[in-house]
Amino acid sequence: QRQPKEPPQALASVGPSDREAHSGTQSSHRLLAYSDALISIIATVMILPVAHTKVEDNEVQFLRQSVQLLLTTKIAVYLMTFLIVSVAWAAHIRLFQVIVRIDDCLALLNLACMMLITFLPYTFSLMATFTENVLGILLFCGCVMVIGVIQSLIVLYAFSRPFLLNEQIQISENQNYYKHHILQVIMRVPIMCFFASIFSFIFFQLSYVLLAIIIFLPYISQCLKWCRSKAIGKHRILQELDSMLFYTYLPNEPLSKDRVEAFSDGVYAIVATLLILDICEDNVPDPTVVQKQFGGSLIAALQVYGPEYLAYFGSFATVGLLWFVHHSLFLHVTKTTRFMGLLNTFSLAFVGGLPLAYQLTHEFPRNSRNELEAIQISCVIVFFAGIFQLAIWVVALYNQQETLHPYVRYGGREHEFMLAKLALYPCVALGTFFLTCILSKFSAPIFHLMEITVPFAFLVLRILVRIGLALLRLIFCPDRPDPRTVVEEEGDETRVPFNALVT
Amino acid sequence: QRQPKEPPQALASVGPSDREAHSGTQSSHRLLAYSDALISIIATVMILPVAHTKVEDNEVQFLRQSVQLLLTTKIAVYLMTFLIVSVAWAAHIRLFQVIVRIDDCLALLNLACMMLITFLPYTFSLMATFTENVLGILLFCGCVMVIGVIQSLIVLYAFSRPFLLNEQIQISENQNYYKHHILQVIMRVPIMCFFASIFSFIFFQLSYVLLAIIIFLPYISQCLKWCRSKAIGKHRILQELDSMLFYTYLPNEPLSKDRVEAFSDGVYAIVATLLILDICEDNVPDPTVVQKQFGGSLIAALQVYGPEYLAYFGSFATVGLLWFVHHSLFLHVTKTTRFMGLLNTFSLAFVGGLPLAYQLTHEFPRNSRNELEAIQISCVIVFFAGIFQLAIWVVALYNQQETLHPYVRYGGREHEFMLAKLALYPCVALGTFFLTCILSKFSAPIFHLMEITVPFAFLVLRILVRIGLALLRLIFCPDRPDPRTVVEEEGDETRVPFNALVT
Repeated sequence: QRQPKEPPQALASVGPSDREAHSGTQSSHRLLAYSDALISIIATVMILPVAHTKVEDNEVQFLRQSVQLLLTTKIAVYLMTFLIVSVAWAAHIRLFQVIVRIDDCLALLNLACMMLITFLPYTFSLMATFTENVLGILLFCGCVMVIGVIQSLIVLYAFSRPFLLNEQIQISENQNYYKHHILQVIMRVPIMCFFASIFSFIFFQLSYVLLAIIIFLPYISQCLKWCRSKAIGKHRILQELDSMLFYTYLPNEPLSKDRVEAFSDGVYAIVATLLILDICEDNVPDPTVVQKQFGGSLIAALQVYGPEYLAYFGSFATVGLLWFVHHSLFLHVTKTTRFMGLLNTFSLAFVGGLPLAYQLTHEFPRNSRNELEAIQISCVIVFFAGIFQLAIWVVALYNQQETLHPYVRYGGREHEFMLAKLALYPCVALGTFFLTCILSKFSAPIFHLMEITVPFAFLVLRILVRIGLALLRLIFCPDRPDPRTVVEEEGDETRVPFNALVT
Repeated sequence: QRQPKEPPQALASVGPSDREAHSGTQSSHRLLAYSDALISIIATVMILPVAHTKVEDNEVQFLRQSVQLLLTTKIAVYLMTFLIVSVAWAAHIRLFQVIVRIDDCLALLNLACMMLITFLPYTFSLMATFTENVLGILLFCGCVMVIGVIQSLIVLYAFSRPFLLNEQIQISENQNYYKHHILQVIMRVPIMCFFASIFSFIFFQLSYVLLAIIIFLPYISQCLKWCRSKAIGKHRILQELDSMLFYTYLPNEPLSKDRVEAFSDGVYAIVATLLILDICEDNVPDPTVVQKQFGGSLIAALQVYGPEYLAYFGSFATVGLLWFVHHSLFLHVTKTTRFMGLLNTFSLAFVGGLPLAYQLTHEFPRNSRNELEAIQISCVIVFFAGIFQLAIWVVALYNQQETLHPYVRYGGREHEFMLAKLALYPCVALGTFFLTCILSKFSAPIFHLMEITVPFAFLVLRILVRIGLALLRLIFCPDRPDPRTVVEEEGDETRVPFNALVT
């Protein structure tokens, strides 16, 4: 749950000079939800130029080349934008884990920051289209620098009104140390961008190197710190532990679970509706065209769009079910770490490409080489989206005491069921991929069958898992054949670790 | 706050046969957040065909006509879709105020329901484009019927597992009565759609009347009930009060505040980014075009798009600030009623048209009649979006004991400040509108000045309000000229109602 709105009585303990300022203090809950919604839209926006690249039917022979062109430029731009925006989003989370309450001024500063973040994808795509032109780099660096300055302003403002801060910092003695550490971390990025923009005039390749360093800065600085702590020794580590409650960049640094969920919800919602946006805009036929070309028969006119509807329902169902799996997983996750957030970002980046892939599967003539390729690409995308979700759970299992609900830990009563849920899509996608390789003639029917059966598989998954487990036990432990005993047994098994771990 | 996830221990009191089913029970929090995100996208989607209608420069003389055509058809479709989708959304809220916990099966049924709701705008726009064709009506009615059937399934499923229900129903004796009442309310709509689809074959005008009745059904049934209670008398009202904890359709029936906020956040976020979606897709110039037409100068090529960037920043800032006002208002709203939800929907419907209006202001040649009209339309839209927000507060003030935080009630310490926040945009929009009427030659500079000054006005609003109040007191109560005393006085004033009302 997000920080609940504190009752005004709780603030009575603060000095009278602070009181007036308090009357404008608010819970940051909705500001963050709105920011998450904005950022999730922006992260997925660069898929639109990819999706709207028309693959023309009359150049089928060049399609391989055209698909490759599409893959190399626009998809790369999409993935990089997704990465850049999620880095900005992670920085935003980190900032508002320190500042837990806001006032009007902070809300307005945050909106200004959001405006620039939503402009980042455009500057980046300019940079990617005109690689040798200075202007793209300058615009991108300019945006990042202004964002950095606004975030520093936010930090300075919040530290001048300590009741806005996280309680741990509020009661901490070295508040100033925190302030300087956070400012230092935040300002690193705009300063490097400043150098990148200067270098762009002299030797523009160098600025790309600098920008790449910025994105991987957390990981690099983490490495450097690790090396230093190895070199200097123990007292250094102790000092670090003291200072680094926030902005640690450790892989197990907590990341607000609510915000990860809100961001994921936003991305899934946008992606699920991407195709209906297109359909609503383009696929309402013109009355005069219907009159002339189809003799006034609306049904005949709409039949032309048949594949689009199929693609919409297919992609909505797949994205919806991937959301469902994500939802089930995060229901049992008790703490989100930075590494889990990174895996989640990868999964979402693949989900973003899904509608496009599904649309392609229906656009080509039946049994063509392109149709087969489009179907296989769809399977690969579904596979990776699912596999990264599974990876989140596997990573969480490594530190299960902290990050998972007892039900889904190893030995928990929902453990196998969760595994089945997470593994269903990757397995089905892999199966479909290989089936289409072997039976390439029937690739389309196989794919459609997959689309139709998976939702029903999810509906009866609990029963399937129980049957599967009973069968496994029947094979490996034939001395306990009664499934009723098995279920009882299961109940016993789970109660032991549950009690042992909670109490 | 949404229903927090109950700890598993809380379920221990339920009988052993229910236990297994419980292990799959989940908080509905995220499902509803995802549904809200989907519905808010779908509600605003029909603005895209309006926004992408190209107003060509070379037919400026026909523009009046073309703008009127645009107003009558596409905008009507947009507004009606918004209304229909928000009716579906209100029904969804009502349903999940009864069902407060979910399991996998309900989650999947809800996703199926969502898929059909997202398809509604398309069927409606088909119906609006081909008014005399049966197919549009049939598709629309078909969708609504299937949605109704799925929702009935959800109700039946939830009532067969009472631990999923709202606690008040769970402990109620007449659970069956509730079930039948809710099913009856839900099935009314698909049954009427069934008749509408049958009538469409015989006399299609009648089906439009039926569909209009469906949308206004809650209000009609409310009227009928009121008349009946007047006619039959007191004992009837008592029975009603007993049965009507949910699905009352009274204007002060509570509407989940979280969901109103989530839906509004979604709409504001989509609307704020509508223009950047277009910019990212269309306004990255082609390298070959830049080489040929602009001699390789990217700056010159981008200058062509100047107005688009301006429109983006203007609309983002306006939508962001309207969100900010909404956020401030709902921070102090403690209970949302159906009537407030309706006003909120109207406000959001106007907000949805904002990007389009802002884009038009920059698309015409300077000082043309069209530019003036576009600017005035923008002002009107901003005015209505703001005035409906103000109306929410006014309605809340009528029942302030229940619906408002003491701070913003009449006499509360933030009362004047909230009024200033809510009144700022309507006042500024009205002022700009009349200024552009008088000084039509300077309409563009006036409009830009408005766009730039409003954010700063919000930043210093607290100071402005204090100065304004001090001035007012100076004029009307000249015996207390010291502003310091006035501030003290204010503090006293507020503490009295606050304590009186809370304790």
